[in-house]
Amino acid sequence: MTATIHTLGAGHEPSLNPLLALVAADMNGVNSVILERMQSKVALIPELAGHLIAGGGKRMRPMLTLACANLLGYPGTRHHKLAAAVEFIHTATLLHDDVVDGSGMRRGKRTANLIWGNPASVLVGDFLFSRAFELMVEDGSLKVLRILSHASAVIAEGEVELTAQRQIETDEDQYLNIIQAKTAALFAAACRVAPVVAENSEEAELALESYGKNLGIAFQLTDDVIDYASDTATMGKGVGDDFRDGKMTLPVILAYARGSRSDRDFWRSAISGERTSDADLARAISLVHETHALSETVERARHYGRRAIDALAIFPSSKAKAALVETVEFAIARAY
Amino acid sequence: MTATIHTLGAGHEPSLNPLLALVAADMNGVNSVILERMQSKVALIPELAGHLIAGGGKRMRPMLTLACANLLGYPGTRHHKLAAAVEFIHTATLLHDDVVDGSGMRRGKRTANLIWGNPASVLVGDFLFSRAFELMVEDGSLKVLRILSHASAVIAEGEVELTAQRQIETDEDQYLNIIQAKTAALFAAACRVAPVVAENSEEAELALESYGKNLGIAFQLTDDVIDYASDTATMGKGVGDDFRDGKMTLPVILAYARGSRSDRDFWRSAISGERTSDADLARAISLVHETHALSETVERARHYGRRAIDALAIFPSSKAKAALVETVEFAIARAY
Repeated sequence: MTATIHTLGAGHEPSLNPLLALVAADMNGVNSVILERMQSKVALIPELAGHLIAGGGKRMRPMLTLACANLLGYPGTRHHKLAAAVEFIHTATLLHDDVVDGSGMRRGKRTANLIWGNPASVLVGDFLFSRAFELMVEDGSLKVLRILSHASAVIAEGEVELTAQRQIETDEDQYLNIIQAKTAALFAAACRVAPVVAENSEEAELALESYGKNLGIAFQLTDDVIDYASDTATMGKGVGDDFRDGKMTLPVILAYARGSRSDRDFWRSAISGERTSDADLARAISLVHETHALSETVERARHYGRRAIDALAIFPSSKAKAALVETVEFAIARAY
Repeated sequence: MTATIHTLGAGHEPSLNPLLALVAADMNGVNSVILERMQSKVALIPELAGHLIAGGGKRMRPMLTLACANLLGYPGTRHHKLAAAVEFIHTATLLHDDVVDGSGMRRGKRTANLIWGNPASVLVGDFLFSRAFELMVEDGSLKVLRILSHASAVIAEGEVELTAQRQIETDEDQYLNIIQAKTAALFAAACRVAPVVAENSEEAELALESYGKNLGIAFQLTDDVIDYASDTATMGKGVGDDFRDGKMTLPVILAYARGSRSDRDFWRSAISGERTSDADLARAISLVHETHALSETVERARHYGRRAIDALAIFPSSKAKAALVETVEFAIARAY
């Protein structure tokens, strides 16, 4: 009954504001935990971690934990530490990702590994990961620990197995496996933690896990689209980072599959790292448009967005539910 | 009453055999867990992890967990998974260490990062770390989780803060802080886990933590001595790895402090990486001998060994206690 009320792209301008308003008070609590627990007598740790944590991230994952708890009427504050733990796991993953990918830019800023070097990024990542587990242990729920340690293992295993970087032969199925491990697993875990803390049903756990997973995929796909958007305004993320890092994201996978012989030659050399000029990026952007690879990627994102919204069907209408639905719509709308 | 019976260096040839015999049956269980849980559909994971796990390590830390449990008469098998988790944390740390240090050799073998590259070592380390937490969560003791997640955080924080690599000004106090975080924290945690599983007293926890911590320091100091030993026989570890990696270990710290002006010039250029030839190593070896830096480092190790043995004073005599004492004696005797 509700999935049809909020139809995607129904005309209004979806935003994150309902989500932000819903979780604002709780988010102060989470931010306190984050700031307190990223401290260390070792000055480099908060400095380096803060570069990423304070550096333009939306804190989507902790907001989702908070919003899902709100959806279930959970009145406590236990989830503040857990939401902070989720953000620490996410940050640790980003730090190690940038080392592994040799990335130089993230969200339009220089990456930590470029500023402080790979060794510092590896070690501060390890520190945040350990801190995340300390926070979970303090909370004391083995079920939460199971959910988040499993998500961490999925992320790590996925990263070893699956790289789309510099791999022109990556296809859509492989790419979906990659983003399920890389992005969707932690979104799903962040949401599933809420019903555990709220001592809600197994059904609620599965529903919110599904919501998070599908939202995560939708977010990642629209992120991929934004990287080929023609202006750099959106979300503070630089355009062309994925292109210059040689990442086979869905827009490229589709453009490559649909491309002419010369288009495909271009993509091969671009993904292998031989074409990184502004003119090359401009050509890539026009190719993903011409082949409708961008709009098709948005369609795929829309599909996962619908599934995310449908997963919420079992919950009665509420401000929290409306905010979670609009978050999906926002995720998709970013791509326009 | 017992610390005086087994005096260090009392004439007999101390060995690891009593420890190995004591834990042999349990160690089969631990090895099964290790082999099973380092598997993955991703072939690179067991391949890379196995290079280190099967590659000449003594599995000291899991053996200590088993021996301490035996000391307390624990009859179960819960600690098998935990001992495996400790070994995974250790292995993950080694993988990341070698990336951070840019090391090329460990235990006389090429390091994983040299064979498979830094990215793979970072990611497989993350995977093993996540698996370690999954194993602990399966066991279900929050107290164990607290001990091991705290040890992990100490290790990570210590690694960020403290590096003796290429730092000629490192002094003995700083170096002790480094090895307490790098080595002793996990030895201590591996031992402390046993009384928790055995549901023994807080007193036993503190005593075994102290045993592990001091043994860990003694082990590290004798490892440092072995790296300047004049032959490559001992423990399968290559001689000169630390020297070539520019590590300020205690033998170098003492030799540098005691050295003549030209000795000190030599150490400065060696630690900064300008002297890595066999002739340079030979000179380093003769300097640590001439200045008695090696024998003094063994004396320091002996001090921590005595403290480890004294920490066992509260436990009645048993085969397990004798094995734990002889393990300390063995740690020291390796340096001769």
